Amino acid sequence: MIGSLNHVAIAVPDLNSSIQTYQTLLGASVSDKVEQIEHGVTVAFIDLPNTKVELITPLGHESPINNFLKKNPNGGLHHICYGVKNIHKSQRILVKAGAKLIGDGKPKLGAHGKLVIFLHPKDFNGTLIELEEI
Amino acid sequence: MIGSLNHVAIAVPDLNSSIQTYQTLLGASVSDKVEQIEHGVTVAFIDLPNTKVELITPLGHESPINNFLKKNPNGGLHHICYGVKNIHKSQRILVKAGAKLIGDGKPKLGAHGKLVIFLHPKDFNGTLIELEEI
Repeated sequence: MIGSLNHVAIAVPDLNSSIQTYQTLLGASVSDKVEQIEHGVTVAFIDLPNTKVELITPLGHESPINNFLKKNPNGGLHHICYGVKNIHKSQRILVKAGAKLIGDGKPKLGAHGKLVIFLHPKDFNGTLIELEEI
Repeated sequence: MIGSLNHVAIAVPDLNSSIQTYQTLLGASVSDKVEQIEHGVTVAFIDLPNTKVELITPLGHESPINNFLKKNPNGGLHHICYGVKNIHKSQRILVKAGAKLIGDGKPKLGAHGKLVIFLHPKDFNGTLIELEEI
């Protein structure tokens, strides 16, 4: 079912500071910041030859990242996203197999304008997994 | 400095169970288990078209994964590894810039038989970063 690694997301408390760190210490190519109001995050992309890493920070009081940063004030690896060909088929297979999905489990438009679902970390060794239709 | 995303490592308490989960729930292609006695871990690789995810579990009482699993009994995202062209040059740049390296900071043969260093999570938003010479 899963295809390429679409991205790894790292939650950070101060996006400007993190961008600077990745640029200066690791010589990374980092995109401009993008506010995604409907997702409650501001994002910057570290562009790598084979995939990307997303630095995400909360935008607003309802941000899904707020709780994570309360538990991990310095930030940390937040989730991993795999591409799938057919998100509705993937969802049906997962639900049938008993996997727990986040929210109502229905595919929704994600931060890249494509349909996504999130799988509960309890089924995957504490790892929050996003599946994105490619 | 950093090139491709080499791998993402997920620490797990029960490797057989995790392999089965990734195979059955996510249809992942997972390698045979590999015992890396000198690194204190047993590993299985999830092969993706553009990179790989490593499921790692402790091997022995001195395993570097033991402490992580004490704090996260169900497992979790453990580290992220980027390829670099010249590990000694990367190390010099990082030390000069004030980054903290794990251990004595000297490049050592890693789990793939290539030279690696580990960067302390405190400089990178709680994210343990491995650099591997490609």
